[in-house]
Amino acid sequence: MTTTQDVLAQLDQVFDSSVSRLAQWLSIPSVGTDPACNDDTRRAGQWLVDQLSAIGLEAQLAETPGHPVVMAHHPGPVGYAGPHILFYGHYDVQPADPLDLWKSPPFEPVIEDGPTGKRIVARGAADDKGQVMTFVEALRAWKDVTGEIPCRITCLVEGEEESGSVNLDNFLTDQREALVGTGAANGPCDFVVVSDTGMWDSNTPALTTMLRGLIYLEFILHGPSHDLHSGMAGGCVPNPINELTRIFGRLHDADRCIQIPGFYDDVQPLSDALRAEWEALGFDEQGFLTECGLTEDVGEYGYSLLERQWGRPTCDINGIVGGYTGKGAKTVIPATASVKVSCRLVPNQDPDKITQSFIEWVKAQVPPACKLEVLDHGSGRPFVMAPDSPYVEVARAGLEEDLGKRPVLMGCGGSIPVVESFKRILGLDALLVGFGLSDDRVHSPNEKFDLKCFNLGQRTHAALLSRFAGMQV
Amino acid sequence: MTTTQDVLAQLDQVFDSSVSRLAQWLSIPSVGTDPACNDDTRRAGQWLVDQLSAIGLEAQLAETPGHPVVMAHHPGPVGYAGPHILFYGHYDVQPADPLDLWKSPPFEPVIEDGPTGKRIVARGAADDKGQVMTFVEALRAWKDVTGEIPCRITCLVEGEEESGSVNLDNFLTDQREALVGTGAANGPCDFVVVSDTGMWDSNTPALTTMLRGLIYLEFILHGPSHDLHSGMAGGCVPNPINELTRIFGRLHDADRCIQIPGFYDDVQPLSDALRAEWEALGFDEQGFLTECGLTEDVGEYGYSLLERQWGRPTCDINGIVGGYTGKGAKTVIPATASVKVSCRLVPNQDPDKITQSFIEWVKAQVPPACKLEVLDHGSGRPFVMAPDSPYVEVARAGLEEDLGKRPVLMGCGGSIPVVESFKRILGLDALLVGFGLSDDRVHSPNEKFDLKCFNLGQRTHAALLSRFAGMQV
Repeated sequence: MTTTQDVLAQLDQVFDSSVSRLAQWLSIPSVGTDPACNDDTRRAGQWLVDQLSAIGLEAQLAETPGHPVVMAHHPGPVGYAGPHILFYGHYDVQPADPLDLWKSPPFEPVIEDGPTGKRIVARGAADDKGQVMTFVEALRAWKDVTGEIPCRITCLVEGEEESGSVNLDNFLTDQREALVGTGAANGPCDFVVVSDTGMWDSNTPALTTMLRGLIYLEFILHGPSHDLHSGMAGGCVPNPINELTRIFGRLHDADRCIQIPGFYDDVQPLSDALRAEWEALGFDEQGFLTECGLTEDVGEYGYSLLERQWGRPTCDINGIVGGYTGKGAKTVIPATASVKVSCRLVPNQDPDKITQSFIEWVKAQVPPACKLEVLDHGSGRPFVMAPDSPYVEVARAGLEEDLGKRPVLMGCGGSIPVVESFKRILGLDALLVGFGLSDDRVHSPNEKFDLKCFNLGQRTHAALLSRFAGMQV
Repeated sequence: MTTTQDVLAQLDQVFDSSVSRLAQWLSIPSVGTDPACNDDTRRAGQWLVDQLSAIGLEAQLAETPGHPVVMAHHPGPVGYAGPHILFYGHYDVQPADPLDLWKSPPFEPVIEDGPTGKRIVARGAADDKGQVMTFVEALRAWKDVTGEIPCRITCLVEGEEESGSVNLDNFLTDQREALVGTGAANGPCDFVVVSDTGMWDSNTPALTTMLRGLIYLEFILHGPSHDLHSGMAGGCVPNPINELTRIFGRLHDADRCIQIPGFYDDVQPLSDALRAEWEALGFDEQGFLTECGLTEDVGEYGYSLLERQWGRPTCDINGIVGGYTGKGAKTVIPATASVKVSCRLVPNQDPDKITQSFIEWVKAQVPPACKLEVLDHGSGRPFVMAPDSPYVEVARAGLEEDLGKRPVLMGCGGSIPVVESFKRILGLDALLVGFGLSDDRVHSPNEKFDLKCFNLGQRTHAALLSRFAGMQV
């Protein structure tokens, strides 16, 4: 592994310039959900195309009805016989609001000192530009040191992950033959590597083998045709906020079990072995709560905090609005009120079935005086990768040898619906190797990415490229 | 009652010129809440001082920290032994926006034809300049026909009603001795006459004897110190929106009875007599709902819609907000969520006691993991004037005899905080005799006042002045 060690040394040597490149990318406000950012979002995609081209990949923007996908390919060394890796990431970022809570402008990256060393602060630092760049910098180092890319790789970096990857399924379907067909020009991909998840802690890399699924619905309750004075109409007409809280106030029972009929019917119980492995991680519940600014938790009775985060389904109202929300008082009965609500699903739960049951449950509680409007903001199936997969085995053993650290197996409370899409449409399993930390404030003001994690990510991908190259497929 | 009939005839004869005077007053844009209108607001007050002076009252602008109060007095005939009436109204008007929805400029009054006859259209036509002028024109007619004002009267017409009468309580407190003290120079006032309410319909004058009180609270629930990703934290931390809906979803039971402990303890049940009188009004429930854009109602079981509006306490969430409220989806667990909520109270309920119980009820349901912040946006006591009050009796009988129409007794679902102030600070009951209609569009574009109502209002006050003058106090 002398070559791998040379590549790792190179990564350390040019680390500062890799941070500058990341900062440059982070300064492009690619808020994919905001039409005002459309030009910048495209520009962020093009920026990545240019980077990958410079490393020697054949790279381009592939159009979709929404934001384009960065597609890039490298055939690997002449006579390559190892697996063809499909790398996935995304270049779009979450909206930055509320802006006033940012200590520095979200698209003007700054390096600051944190308790575990330096970190880069900007929207998208960890989710997902910083993670994508761990892989890009690993490729660059291999190229710089050896003149070669050690693996056959295809990169697919989309611009709509924060928009629910609305066009990705169609894109994958269109590209199915090119990506996994027997006659694919570049040869069929063998598995997916995704960098959009977390490490166990800043010293312990992790492979994530379990992801929660997601459904996301919006319920808009319509009452009177226009806002009314609560003195004249209070007690006489349906108040959509009263009705909405009445319905959604019954989402959980006292044990925080979800009351949607049939919600738990298909849930795969956590095995004793998995519960034991997770237990052995020694998760610092108090530390987690402290990071959240809390002293106590709230959650489903009978499960540890980690089990609830990784292995149990949940339901959260993500947004609610109705009536007067300015300063002071206004005695109004509003015409409408609405909630945005999502469920995290675990292996074996069917998003369509849960969606259907959820909508029926709400509908049954709407009084005849109101009208219900339902918007479906998309869903993703839960994902589970067998812990005995050869890719998992090779990665765990190889990283232990090259980096001196054996990655732990984790679950993940979040959803990466694309992982499910890769499985369903392309038939490919995904290896989730990410470098985020739980305090990265992804989706929140002051998002950051530890430079230590950025470095470890680069080193991990560099080592994995070599290890995967050595596998027989 | 020959004299009264002469005065009524005079009112009819000079009605056109009274409309011109009202139009002149309406053309002064006295938007009290808009500092740009400060000069005009004062000018509108001075205009009324001049009108009252011309009729022979001692009138002036009394300064406050805000807009001045028009104060005017007349001792009544020599040797007068009847009650001293305190007349209340206001000369400030609501802002006119949205301007583009007005068919004619809001401060250029026009006379137009409506389904029930001619009406004057301008901001303030019904609320409250038109109503104040019903009383002023009645005084003028008495003076013109008899050379006398038949009653001892004090007029108090403020310029800050649409600003929440922010300086009125202090003003009344300062004037307490002068208005109701035993050594008051003008003698103590006996009761208040307010013209700022409505008629039953354009043919049926009404005395409003019941007003609902109000408490208005804001509850802000704090969970995590910052917004969290629902994938990472869902199921582990308190979600303030989940918790808030859980708590406020229990505000009402299935019969829409309010669940705050002790809420109904002090409620004075509606007497069978009052329920019968209200029932006899033949309220058009379906018409009311149609105006609200509804086909069905929602409200407390066991009461008619009118009873619920006038005589039963209610609780409505007037505003709610938390988390992501933009377009599309964001999987956030927010740091806070809040509701603004108000209760309409009925006679005998104590706003302080209800406020206390409400806050305790919410507090008891907040999980230890959350913090609760409570803002009190003020309260007003409910008001009731005994239907057997001598003033009510004299007014009903007198108007029936003089005008041929017996006023009906009404409740009002809204609050008129000044009525409570007169009671609390001066110890005076109020007789609410108003001439608005429910379609007057007060606070909305194209506010109007039916000339039929303007005329009936003048005639009503002319008759009442004579009837009250004949009472022994």
